[in-house]
Amino acid sequence: MRLDDLPTPCLVLDRGILKRNIDTMARRLARHGVPLRPHMKTAKSIDVARLAIAGQPGGITVSTLAEAEYFASHGITDILYAVGITPQKLDRVARLNSAGAGVIVLTDDPDTAGAIAAHGRPPRALIEIDCGEGRGGVFPGDDLLLAIAARLGPCLAGVMTHAGHSYAGRSAKDMARIAEAERAGVVCAAGRLREAGHPGPIVSMGSSPTALHARHLDGVTEVRAGVYMLGDLFQAEIGTNDLDAIALTVLTSVIGRRPGRLLVDAGGLALSKDRSTADAPRDYGFGLVLDPAGRRSHGDAIVRRAYQEHGVVEADPGFPLDLPVGARLRIAPNHTCMTAAAHDRYFVVEGSDEIVAIWPRVNGW
Amino acid sequence: MRLDDLPTPCLVLDRGILKRNIDTMARRLARHGVPLRPHMKTAKSIDVARLAIAGQPGGITVSTLAEAEYFASHGITDILYAVGITPQKLDRVARLNSAGAGVIVLTDDPDTAGAIAAHGRPPRALIEIDCGEGRGGVFPGDDLLLAIAARLGPCLAGVMTHAGHSYAGRSAKDMARIAEAERAGVVCAAGRLREAGHPGPIVSMGSSPTALHARHLDGVTEVRAGVYMLGDLFQAEIGTNDLDAIALTVLTSVIGRRPGRLLVDAGGLALSKDRSTADAPRDYGFGLVLDPAGRRSHGDAIVRRAYQEHGVVEADPGFPLDLPVGARLRIAPNHTCMTAAAHDRYFVVEGSDEIVAIWPRVNGW
Repeated sequence: MRLDDLPTPCLVLDRGILKRNIDTMARRLARHGVPLRPHMKTAKSIDVARLAIAGQPGGITVSTLAEAEYFASHGITDILYAVGITPQKLDRVARLNSAGAGVIVLTDDPDTAGAIAAHGRPPRALIEIDCGEGRGGVFPGDDLLLAIAARLGPCLAGVMTHAGHSYAGRSAKDMARIAEAERAGVVCAAGRLREAGHPGPIVSMGSSPTALHARHLDGVTEVRAGVYMLGDLFQAEIGTNDLDAIALTVLTSVIGRRPGRLLVDAGGLALSKDRSTADAPRDYGFGLVLDPAGRRSHGDAIVRRAYQEHGVVEADPGFPLDLPVGARLRIAPNHTCMTAAAHDRYFVVEGSDEIVAIWPRVNGW
Repeated sequence: MRLDDLPTPCLVLDRGILKRNIDTMARRLARHGVPLRPHMKTAKSIDVARLAIAGQPGGITVSTLAEAEYFASHGITDILYAVGITPQKLDRVARLNSAGAGVIVLTDDPDTAGAIAAHGRPPRALIEIDCGEGRGGVFPGDDLLLAIAARLGPCLAGVMTHAGHSYAGRSAKDMARIAEAERAGVVCAAGRLREAGHPGPIVSMGSSPTALHARHLDGVTEVRAGVYMLGDLFQAEIGTNDLDAIALTVLTSVIGRRPGRLLVDAGGLALSKDRSTADAPRDYGFGLVLDPAGRRSHGDAIVRRAYQEHGVVEADPGFPLDLPVGARLRIAPNHTCMTAAAHDRYFVVEGSDEIVAIWPRVNGW
């Protein structure tokens, strides 16, 4: 099967680029002697996970319990569910752990910590630390940290933070500064817990930009990152990946022609409505238009508008885009996590137009 | 099973509201004596389709071939695939039609019209007319219309237009004006075809706003509309539905607390990144926060930010939102077509918190 045989729209994953991205991250972290717990929320695929954990301890991070169940069913047992847990979800975690998994949960709430400790089959838990993102987590110096630790008791497994605000950085220097604040915040929290007599072996930090740009990771026991595997236009804008290191594209067909633009069958569902690059130095609309081989033959043509099933491609005036209905294009996405989630599988290529594998994804909750 | 038993995030569909919305549209169109070919791109559910076609001729509109295959497998045969066809997709249509369906395709391209007519099992086809939206279609007065008709030959089944630009309207008067331009455009195109000797019995127009607000539909043989069934915040802003006629919400759990805001487990995947209301009179962020019974107990609280799996709810200062982790909320969506697409089923309620049915959806392509 070749690219031309695929129904459109669909996801095309370049395994060569994927492997290079995974290798780059592994080498960067090896300099610091800190292992990776790859975040599978982007790829949601056991085939990608196997590549990402090669040479690492073997644990992963997930963003849904559906992912935890899927990866556990494929033999991965060390799983961090890195979204705040609710008491109601503990039974589902317990079923996985009773069947042999070791799902670790996350909280920043004393009452939830109490519910974890009181559960009939309590999981290990991390306390979420806010290192400046302002989303979830307690501040490292907040007494709430010690209160939660006390409620967790023997369930306490450590601390975790996520510098999601690194996405507001625009240079390697910005990222190094944010990475240091992330590291210092979570290490400080871990130190306060130890001083108070709470053991907590895991000190976990990470986001793709801070994982790549951190100058040192002293005191950190593991790094989490996910989007680096596939890359996207927004990550290119903030320096995580080069434009030619985007492993994921959406294959699409031309379905209409007008002067200076084309209609394609990749719209808001196939690409997502994510507009991350609207605030980046370069705004790519709903995606950058590539030729069927993934090359930039069409200059700066982008998907300017996205309806449910229609994308409107605006040509770069320097690169006329005179293609017939049925011609194929590939669209590099703004935000690969969001784009991939509308699709149930990857069509995998490596250096040619031959489909070398089909890898399923686990969507939903 | 009750709402409290459901895993979050998930879709909750209120069947009572759904039925009222379907009834309202049917009564509006009955005034004009024009039947409805409901667009199933929003609901993507055979259970919803059965309600929507009751009392109508029985044909539907779809936006993907996956929908066409799904609805055909459930016994609906008269299916308009209302997105421009490519030559490569004709085999898939032919397989459906050989098995007993009557899938009608759409084109605005002479070469594609030629490919349709030359196919071994050619489907019937409509010519897409641009009535001012500026997306797909030929203008009613363009000679291209006659060229495409000539290429289609006996496959020509009529004309179709979609006033998607009605979404830029902000009043019933705007909508009535756009509806009349939509009607006049498609009726003019049909007349030109008849004058040139091309029979084309179908004269199809529609969007939810223009279907509701048209003053007359002379010359039109069918109306298409879809989002009116479920409704959403954007459609409320443009007058298609009242706020209390939104049948679809996302059930979510509180996963974190901070002063003045909550974290919930409905983020950009569960709600979509659609920001339609950003350009409406009232900007609802990523959705309006309702209580578990679907009431506006929290005033103007909205989901202000959406990460992949985290939503940040900003409280309305007049309505404190002091809820524990694990508490439930429901979120009314900006754009119901986009929000529903991340989920594989509806949990159906009707007048209480009891789940009276689970209805699957057909996603993907």
